[in-house]
Amino acid sequence: MLPEALRRVVHLLARLPGVGEKSAQRYALYLCQDGRELPHDLAEALEEMSLQVGPCRRCGNIAEGAPDARLCTICADPRRDATVLCVVARVQDLLAVERSGAHRGRYFVLGKLLSPLDGVGPSELPLPALRSIVEADATEEIIVATPPSVDGEATALWLKQELESASLCVTRIASGVPHGGDLEFADQVTLQRSMAGRKNMASQKA
Amino acid sequence: MLPEALRRVVHLLARLPGVGEKSAQRYALYLCQDGRELPHDLAEALEEMSLQVGPCRRCGNIAEGAPDARLCTICADPRRDATVLCVVARVQDLLAVERSGAHRGRYFVLGKLLSPLDGVGPSELPLPALRSIVEADATEEIIVATPPSVDGEATALWLKQELESASLCVTRIASGVPHGGDLEFADQVTLQRSMAGRKNMASQKA
Repeated sequence: MLPEALRRVVHLLARLPGVGEKSAQRYALYLCQDGRELPHDLAEALEEMSLQVGPCRRCGNIAEGAPDARLCTICADPRRDATVLCVVARVQDLLAVERSGAHRGRYFVLGKLLSPLDGVGPSELPLPALRSIVEADATEEIIVATPPSVDGEATALWLKQELESASLCVTRIASGVPHGGDLEFADQVTLQRSMAGRKNMASQKA
Repeated sequence: MLPEALRRVVHLLARLPGVGEKSAQRYALYLCQDGRELPHDLAEALEEMSLQVGPCRRCGNIAEGAPDARLCTICADPRRDATVLCVVARVQDLLAVERSGAHRGRYFVLGKLLSPLDGVGPSELPLPALRSIVEADATEEIIVATPPSVDGEATALWLKQELESASLCVTRIASGVPHGGDLEFADQVTLQRSMAGRKNMASQKA
């Protein structure tokens, strides 16, 4: 009953993460009814983005430029500490760590996590690319900032086993009750981690 | 920190209904990382849709064709009963009524509802267009299928006052406990309406 051109837009929008057929139809109908301007501008912007923006060839962060020469602003910045490498699952996580201002080294985006349930095994993770960066930069510390979920923890453990050596230390971000969080409403696992990860207060001050 | 071309896509996607800055960024990052195919296809589909699809010049439903000649499949279908007109707020509502198969007449899409809080007054609703259809089709019944919300009820009442005449009857869709719904969990207003709208069972069978 809907025109073919509209159904095609619905079908493509439904491929976005977390967008179902119903939301996609809502977006497409809105675009149809808003006049020509918004769909036209969006089409132009998407085409431009698809030509100019893609993964950094080194770390997987978002970068601008020709596909073969794409280097993100972080990898291109000589002031970043190349000896500390923060490994994240997704670009969004990289952006979150950057916003926090807590990391002055470089990054590596895995793109996915080990997930036996979804059939993602070690061979699907970009370990060779990660190893070559570690060698090239003479990395001294890898901070594994995968999420504190089952898949994130499994990936962290696997990275430690694969990469740790006499010259390379693999660390894991702390997990516990979040800043401003209420102990009363924290789940059991978070509280267990919070207790197990306790620190001497003098060392925290340092 | 994000490339300009990506920020532009985020900005435009955030104009879609129910999409905030955060979701828009998630979609744009996904489009960036999925290779060139999806953003390119989506751009092409959007451009085609913006050229070919738009509101029906008669009823406001989605229609194909050149902007001046756009007539939807329902308005173009001579088998539809032109004497019964169903007035809805949005195209999505029209599609829902069509899916139910309960209406064999034509439609009119208002596009918005009266809403004093949002500053939408009677002058912003397409009453002249609705009147001209009623005259042209010699409409005998208008079924007001706006939602049973404050704005929807106000709009229904206003339409009745403006349009009802000796030759034109204005009816309102029933509101009550939905099919399969539980009385225990129905809200007070729904139950009040359900009671007030009760029918003689013999007449229901007819």
